[in-house]
Amino acid sequence: MVSDTRDLAQHIGEVALIDQHVHGCWSAPGDRQRFENALNEANSEPITHSGFDSQLGFAVRAHCAPVLGLPKHADPQAYWERRRQFDENDLNRLFLTAAGVSDWLVDTGIGGTGVAGVADMARLSGNRVHEVVRLEEVAEQAAQLPGDYATAFGDLLRRRAAGAVGTKSILAYRGGFDGDLSEPSTTEVAEAAARWREGGGTRLQDRVLLRFGLHQALRLGKPLQFHVGFGDRDCDLHKANPLLLLDFLRGTADIPIVLLHCYPYEREAGYLAQAFNNVYVDGGLSVNHLGARSRAFLARLLEMAPFSKILYSSDGFGPAELHFLGTVLWRRGVERLLREFVDRDDWSEPDAIRVVDLIARENAARIYDLG
Amino acid sequence: MVSDTRDLAQHIGEVALIDQHVHGCWSAPGDRQRFENALNEANSEPITHSGFDSQLGFAVRAHCAPVLGLPKHADPQAYWERRRQFDENDLNRLFLTAAGVSDWLVDTGIGGTGVAGVADMARLSGNRVHEVVRLEEVAEQAAQLPGDYATAFGDLLRRRAAGAVGTKSILAYRGGFDGDLSEPSTTEVAEAAARWREGGGTRLQDRVLLRFGLHQALRLGKPLQFHVGFGDRDCDLHKANPLLLLDFLRGTADIPIVLLHCYPYEREAGYLAQAFNNVYVDGGLSVNHLGARSRAFLARLLEMAPFSKILYSSDGFGPAELHFLGTVLWRRGVERLLREFVDRDDWSEPDAIRVVDLIARENAARIYDLG
Amino acid sequence: MVSDTRDLAQHIGEVALIDQHVHGCWSAPGDRQRFENALNEANSEPITHSGFDSQLGFAVRAHCAPVLGLPKHADPQAYWERRRQFDENDLNRLFLTAAGVSDWLVDTGIGGTGVAGVADMARLSGNRVHEVVRLEEVAEQAAQLPGDYATAFGDLLRRRAAGAVGTKSILAYRGGFDGDLSEPSTTEVAEAAARWREGGGTRLQDRVLLRFGLHQALRLGKPLQFHVGFGDRDCDLHKANPLLLLDFLRGTADIPIVLLHCYPYEREAGYLAQAFNNVYVDGGLSVNHLGARSRAFLARLLEMAPFSKILYSSDGFGPAELHFLGTVLWRRGVERLLREFVDRDDWSEPDAIRVVDLIARENAARIYDLG
Repeated sequence: MVSDTRDLAQHIGEVALIDQHVHGCWSAPGDRQRFENALNEANSEPITHSGFDSQLGFAVRAHCAPVLGLPKHADPQAYWERRRQFDENDLNRLFLTAAGVSDWLVDTGIGGTGVAGVADMARLSGNRVHEVVRLEEVAEQAAQLPGDYATAFGDLLRRRAAGAVGTKSILAYRGGFDGDLSEPSTTEVAEAAARWREGGGTRLQDRVLLRFGLHQALRLGKPLQFHVGFGDRDCDLHKANPLLLLDFLRGTADIPIVLLHCYPYEREAGYLAQAFNNVYVDGGLSVNHLGARSRAFLARLLEMAPFSKILYSSDGFGPAELHFLGTVLWRRGVERLLREFVDRDDWSEPDAIRVVDLIARENAARIYDLG
Repeated sequence: MVSDTRDLAQHIGEVALIDQHVHGCWSAPGDRQRFENALNEANSEPITHSGFDSQLGFAVRAHCAPVLGLPKHADPQAYWERRRQFDENDLNRLFLTAAGVSDWLVDTGIGGTGVAGVADMARLSGNRVHEVVRLEEVAEQAAQLPGDYATAFGDLLRRRAAGAVGTKSILAYRGGFDGDLSEPSTTEVAEAAARWREGGGTRLQDRVLLRFGLHQALRLGKPLQFHVGFGDRDCDLHKANPLLLLDFLRGTADIPIVLLHCYPYEREAGYLAQAFNNVYVDGGLSVNHLGARSRAFLARLLEMAPFSKILYSSDGFGPAELHFLGTVLWRRGVERLLREFVDRDDWSEPDAIRVVDLIARENAARIYDLG
Repeated sequence: MVSDTRDLAQHIGEVALIDQHVHGCWSAPGDRQRFENALNEANSEPITHSGFDSQLGFAVRAHCAPVLGLPKHADPQAYWERRRQFDENDLNRLFLTAAGVSDWLVDTGIGGTGVAGVADMARLSGNRVHEVVRLEEVAEQAAQLPGDYATAFGDLLRRRAAGAVGTKSILAYRGGFDGDLSEPSTTEVAEAAARWREGGGTRLQDRVLLRFGLHQALRLGKPLQFHVGFGDRDCDLHKANPLLLLDFLRGTADIPIVLLHCYPYEREAGYLAQAFNNVYVDGGLSVNHLGARSRAFLARLLEMAPFSKILYSSDGFGPAELHFLGTVLWRRGVERLLREFVDRDDWSEPDAIRVVDLIARENAARIYDLG
């Protein structure tokens, strides 16, 4: 049975997304190497092949080229030539406003100069922007403050989080999830902080302080995001398997815990979203990097996770193409997937539309209290 | 090339399944919270979102609603209102007889009062019912008996297994598969049993006694089932990866070992079914919980496992919808999958029909000696 | 939008493949048990079910039967009867020439008498043949030589590699990837070699000497292949997860590292191909064993790996059906997959054709310097 799914397609095309995990666009111009490297997430060194020769590269050419007035599948040289004719912030405006997003939740923990901040993102997109505070950045700032580390961290975290909608941990990049993640004692924290400060207090790797930060974040009562799975090779991918968070999750009560990206552990993450009332799952940057293969990934996100526990984000960082492309690939993938469910009469069309709204914005609006 | 696959579809629709791993239906009425929680396997606490907002919930509304005289996709409120008008055993009769199953292999290790036993299941369904004995239950009973534990366990196991077709282990829930699974010595067993009995002899977690139980079960010469992968969060999912059973499997000779559920490790389980003459794989409850996505899972079961090593079960427990729905989703998924193989001329239609029979019943009939 | 993809289909059908990891065909006749066991990779014992009852068995009947003049899906008995009428080398000629391969890269580390060598493969196929030297075989030969082990190994490796295009490690079968893979000291090597030689110097399992071999191979400046994932049960599959190679890969600079087979870790392997400029991924024997399900596997290879980092191989060993079937399944799977990308306008057709050429031959020609 093939139903009339024009309503579903139209709804998916029009729904305004909440991008619940994103970073700033580049605000300064750069060279082609910078751009091509930004099409490769995992490699932390200059890539020696073309960044365009990937699912993400092909997806940029297919879906971003028309935004710049080029035909679909414009070749890499043509794409780059056209792109460099634009001022970086004109590009940002173009892609951010084309994305069909109402709210951006910006993790401000990376970037520095040359990357748009919260106010810049609001101005460029014309949308609402909310901050997500990165715990490891707070720790590294607290290490430089005078006095007791725990107090400094707690004060700074509360101050920064007061204006933010949630926090984020990159524990995955600082040793991974394996091992004890219980709350350390005051003495342990003090000793660890002293050692770290003696060593300079930069790039937090100390497990005691990482654990301390997580438990402090839980006390804020706001959602806590975790980088999970796919990222750059500084992370040992198998130590970013979310199942290694099981013991930690058992102690997080009702604070929303959001698992980001997740590839190739999205089925494990979906299981956790079923197993814990407070766990949420989001495909994040995996969608962009999977390009023409993103539908299969989105399908796996719709397996074990309850539909009230699935979120959308692009994890865009750097080229504004990523902030835009995430929404295009999500809409295309979800439309094909749900249309298939509806065509086979496994789901009704109104149910499909309701699930779109949950994932596109309602789940995020609810847990981040976006009003 | 598109062949005429009406024969295949008809055959899949009509074949009587052997549900080789199932539990009793509820025999007593319950409230909506009980029902909605039964739509969530992984969460062992009361769920705070609707159990209907999941692939399983949508599948219940799509495929079970018509059995109760409702339209497909009836909304949750309408479904619940109709369901509660029935006596629980009338529901059981309705769903069990609609399932198209000839034999139920009932694991009697959970349930107690309020759950149908072996005789109840036979009476309600009108089908043959066979018992599968849970090893950890036998151990917990033996702990309460006087005299030597090993003797008590062995006697009780042989007595109970005499009328049963196989045994089952929930080692996955009692510490997982990681670590030594060799047979312990008589002295080790006696010491472990003494310690356990001193502590009360309830909920077996002792590794020595768990290992002892497995090796005793192997001596019975009947199939031994293992819970693998997907289950509730008492189980550390990554410790229920069947690859951790490799060393144990290397010593199991020709006793059939059946890996149940397996998600998200079904490809690993299929590999083991290829690697060992005596290992079998079954998707169990994963099919129900994947709903509209179950076809993709069933497809992965048809990868590395030889076709003579794949089984069917629903793992239904509680609402009789599950005992019925497993068969609906299995038939729908397998039909689409095999029709695709046949349409592309990768398989012949007679081969497809033969594989259906193997998985639906012949493999189970053979290893459990169901006559 | 459905484009005219006849060009793509024709191109995929005609492109000459480089089979970058293969072994010799049988050169001597054998019985049916030998043949059926060769349809099962994982089981290292005589199989007790029919080897034909598997995706590989069905694929042989579908795609190899016509090469022998039988109808598609000829039954196992008919297939075997026809097959045994041929001289083994006539079969080899038939299947090797039908494969559409231009170059075979032969790992000579298994086989011995009864298996075609490099010169035989060239003669039988009429194609170019290049050798890949297995490190563990070199070690076992060096153990039997007089004098310092490290010197003997190094000399022998350089001599054998001089005429070869690369090396291969089966570390996966000799304890797996888990643990330290750094280069051992001269003293450690000397001590380990002495211990090993005292024990007979057969079947290398010593970690120090395995590590030594890997680092010696890197110094050759030629690609180093690793068996990854799916293989026989001598290998602990979970210890052949390529993510356990992360630390080793971080130190391999620009020597091409080729991850073979990979199932069920192909997504992890693809990630590594994105993360490291020098890492390549190949589905190897998984394609044959997945038969009608190989398209889904090939699709996963086209996820995170840059297109310049994906290779083709059959890993054929024994029956020449495997050398041929790998190309059939690869062509069929890739055609359906890329046609889908093109039909949905996610990829352009010229891009699809270019990616076919990269995977089919250009990537391999480049890294093995095949001219």
